[in-house]
Amino acid sequence: MRPQLDFWYEFASTYSYLAALRIEAQAKERNMDIAWRPFLLGPIFKAQGWATSPFNLYPAKGAYMWRDLERLCDVQGLKFRKPDPFPQSSLTAARIALTDEVAPQRAEFSRRVYLAEFAEGARIDDDAVLEAVVDSIGLDGEAVLEAARSDAVKLRLRQATEEATRLNLFGAPSFVTPDGEVFWGNDRLEMALSWAGRRP
Amino acid sequence: MRPQLDFWYEFASTYSYLAALRIEAQAKERNMDIAWRPFLLGPIFKAQGWATSPFNLYPAKGAYMWRDLERLCDVQGLKFRKPDPFPQSSLTAARIALTDEVAPQRAEFSRRVYLAEFAEGARIDDDAVLEAVVDSIGLDGEAVLEAARSDAVKLRLRQATEEATRLNLFGAPSFVTPDGEVFWGNDRLEMALSWAGRRP
Repeated sequence: MRPQLDFWYEFASTYSYLAALRIEAQAKERNMDIAWRPFLLGPIFKAQGWATSPFNLYPAKGAYMWRDLERLCDVQGLKFRKPDPFPQSSLTAARIALTDEVAPQRAEFSRRVYLAEFAEGARIDDDAVLEAVVDSIGLDGEAVLEAARSDAVKLRLRQATEEATRLNLFGAPSFVTPDGEVFWGNDRLEMALSWAGRRP
Repeated sequence: MRPQLDFWYEFASTYSYLAALRIEAQAKERNMDIAWRPFLLGPIFKAQGWATSPFNLYPAKGAYMWRDLERLCDVQGLKFRKPDPFPQSSLTAARIALTDEVAPQRAEFSRRVYLAEFAEGARIDDDAVLEAVVDSIGLDGEAVLEAARSDAVKLRLRQATEEATRLNLFGAPSFVTPDGEVFWGNDRLEMALSWAGRRP
């Protein structure tokens, strides 16, 4: 059995973009597998009294985050455009990621959504944008969007978000090891991989 | 001229403990100088509506932080005890750090305060604890505490905190380069040093 790490991400999250675009290379170096776990931060923020992203609620922190992201994208060789509006509504993207059709290519779908959103400036709450991303990985965008609207898929996303809440996740990206250790933030990716990869 | 980095720290801040205990070794490797800049986060938190540390206001984030800190102290080879209460009142420690007497040894004084607080579990709002720290670096603790109560020193700390506000600092540790680039968090120390050390 190869060691595994759960990668919890939110499509609207800026630092999840950075993690999504580098996690597979980092895992490959260590012969590890990544389980891609999309969830919604909105309900978790709401439960602690936040109606929007803390980066909007606290302007100094928000202004810093945009500058920090710009610098980190530079280092990582990623293009960056500030999404407008921010945060984007990520509900449909997360549901699509959880369809049976997309599941085998969830990582690639997710990376392309992040690139559309943060490199190209596209709106991920626009069905046409998401259909085009699904088409681009060789699936039928229209059919997959239809599947994403099913009760079964809606339930899957609700359950994922409930599991995130049970794990006490409060931000994204978060990484959870098989022994239940939680690491928060793109900055902790390497530490999380090392932890999950330790021989008992 | 050796490159310089401003290290903004708050004595009650957990991640400032980690940064304070490793910044000089990191700077020495790069032939750089560190300006130690104590300030108070309390007034900055208050201005955005927080009456205490966000780690107390948001319990999931707080619980995570204590675990994260424990893991990071392990990696860094530092002892760790959770201060009680948290956050400690850091007013007197910050004033002492800004006295003329302590200024030439501000780094060593600050490290010893952090160790008393986070490794030994001592209360840094206790004058006797702070006097002992000052004594331990070869100064007269009683006289320095007296100096720390002077209007001149109180003003210095107020001005430092005002400068932090002007720089839009919102957390600690923060690092500021001579060209005004701000980096927040112990995780950004290496990036801040690299930025400040770049040849123009």
